[in-house]
Amino acid sequence: MKIQNQHYHTIWTKKDDPETVQVIDQRVLPHQLVIHDISTPEEAALAISDMVVRGAPLIGVTAAYGLYLACLRSTADTELEAVAQALKAARPTAVNLAWAVDTVMAELRDVGAEERTAVALAAAERIQSEDIEICRMIGVHGLELIRELYQKKQRTINVLTHCNAGWLATVDWGTATSPVYHAMEADIPVHVWVDETRPRNQGANLTAYEMVQQEVPHTLIVDNTGGHLMQHGMVDLVIVGTDRTTSCGDVANKIGTYLKALAAKDNNVPFYVALPSSTIDWDLKDGVKEIPIEQRSEEEVTHISGWANDQVQKVRLSPEGTPAANYGFDVTPARLVTGLITERGVCEASEEGLLSLFPERAHTHG
Amino acid sequence: MKIQNQHYHTIWTKKDDPETVQVIDQRVLPHQLVIHDISTPEEAALAISDMVVRGAPLIGVTAAYGLYLACLRSTADTELEAVAQALKAARPTAVNLAWAVDTVMAELRDVGAEERTAVALAAAERIQSEDIEICRMIGVHGLELIRELYQKKQRTINVLTHCNAGWLATVDWGTATSPVYHAMEADIPVHVWVDETRPRNQGANLTAYEMVQQEVPHTLIVDNTGGHLMQHGMVDLVIVGTDRTTSCGDVANKIGTYLKALAAKDNNVPFYVALPSSTIDWDLKDGVKEIPIEQRSEEEVTHISGWANDQVQKVRLSPEGTPAANYGFDVTPARLVTGLITERGVCEASEEGLLSLFPERAHTHG
Repeated sequence: MKIQNQHYHTIWTKKDDPETVQVIDQRVLPHQLVIHDISTPEEAALAISDMVVRGAPLIGVTAAYGLYLACLRSTADTELEAVAQALKAARPTAVNLAWAVDTVMAELRDVGAEERTAVALAAAERIQSEDIEICRMIGVHGLELIRELYQKKQRTINVLTHCNAGWLATVDWGTATSPVYHAMEADIPVHVWVDETRPRNQGANLTAYEMVQQEVPHTLIVDNTGGHLMQHGMVDLVIVGTDRTTSCGDVANKIGTYLKALAAKDNNVPFYVALPSSTIDWDLKDGVKEIPIEQRSEEEVTHISGWANDQVQKVRLSPEGTPAANYGFDVTPARLVTGLITERGVCEASEEGLLSLFPERAHTHG
Repeated sequence: MKIQNQHYHTIWTKKDDPETVQVIDQRVLPHQLVIHDISTPEEAALAISDMVVRGAPLIGVTAAYGLYLACLRSTADTELEAVAQALKAARPTAVNLAWAVDTVMAELRDVGAEERTAVALAAAERIQSEDIEICRMIGVHGLELIRELYQKKQRTINVLTHCNAGWLATVDWGTATSPVYHAMEADIPVHVWVDETRPRNQGANLTAYEMVQQEVPHTLIVDNTGGHLMQHGMVDLVIVGTDRTTSCGDVANKIGTYLKALAAKDNNVPFYVALPSSTIDWDLKDGVKEIPIEQRSEEEVTHISGWANDQVQKVRLSPEGTPAANYGFDVTPARLVTGLITERGVCEASEEGLLSLFPERAHTHG
């Protein structure tokens, strides 16, 4: 995708210095574009734990590159195992992170020390390419939903999204945003309602930034607004991402997603969830009962960061003495989800729907 | 109600100087308690337009005192009419403001110039006392709903509220908060989930402040959180205020109220609206179709104010180039409202329900 009209991925090896990995520092977006250098596996772990990079797919790719950087220093088993543990510990709940580390480590164990650096780099690059391709295919399938609405309505299609499931959370294209970017390329007129997504404001900070850079018509709204817009026919389609999907199609996503799904149902607005199939947890059924919801720091609620006097400043919003609760995610039951957009196509949010696209899972779960 | 253990109203005539009216400056709450002097009708109009005072009942009382201050300067008809127009223009959409100004002006026209100052002061004090009594009675009736839940559940009752329909929006007690304050006085254990209520954060700024000062157990949450809490049985009752209620029980309130009503319905959580009957617009039926929704400044979405370095600071949240939309209110259809809490009692959110409490309206509308 583009920033200031240049094509970017969220992670790459530095030009003329392939022993340094570079990422976009997402902590200072949208106010500044800072490219962050990662030269050691420790720096890779820190980039993950400090949220220089965020988004499950991007975290996984960053960890894979972290193992490549480790190999540059030492290809000894004990050193690599220690790095693998440290990388996984950088964000212990990220399933995708552990998967990426385990995948690269398995390949490294299969080869001799002299081959390991090349194998690690190739594995990181392959995981990165696979992510791009998965996100692209989500866009190809999601585009057809937008195209259908456009053919029926013959006017700009209004898409509402929550949080950032954009290319900044992946390597390229994003998940929920990929259908929108594909619609732009297909010359279908779209407009995106961007939920600011308190408390961390990933919508205002990141999705809005992506939309500005990609020149997608968009409007920022507070999270309270979507219901009103749907009551008045101003939303044609909701597309959100997900952190975890159960085998029955329940969807855990950023807190507040459930409220938008209720409003969509109440106003007959189609509500779609875009997801790489790696986020499906085939062992879970009832998301509300079974998915643990992470509680995060109170300070994300009581304070907020923004731009003032040419720097990022944090201000306190609430009175001293007021405690806060900060649930990171909620679960939207499958009954409120019109469909799931995966890299293999669009399906109903149900066990039957998912198995129709992933028949190889029929005997491995339940 | 109490601030720092002293009893306050939101407006009063200054002790030892009855020609000055004093109010709590709500622009710097919760960070500072500043008492703001109003000595002229122009200062009263400015206090309303600058939102030193806000909340329909309090604005009305402030305007009534503005006419009293006008009389102190001149009791001539032309001067008073000019002040009346200026006060109404300070917040043109506030129905209650025009009503208060018209009420006082009608009384002033009935008496000679020499009596007008005393009549204006008495009218302002009467409007103020009536508001206190209406809010008290809303609390008396609403308390019974909380008491019933407590008798059934025998544990702390969790109340969720949105925006500030507290005593700071009225003269004392508040509307949605009055049942909670009455429950505290009746020794019923309550806990309040306070929606921060973006974009102006009246929940975080004002409701949380009230709860701290009244020593009500409470927890601040972002507006996205309520649905998750209700899914997990952590909310027993929702009570919100309203700016305008139709004769059929549709309720216009701060943007985002509708989303909470949907979640309450989906989880069988009772959803009540507390209102002085002056907010009922007997001429309206379908709120979603008939109530115009005010759009406010984009800057309330793109920027936020908070406390840093011992002062209120404004920071920018979103990227340059991102437009924002700012709808101030939404409409919750009566079908999602369990009941209305008025000064005369609790009724169903329907024409029949409202007429059962206000039978004198049966022949005046429809």
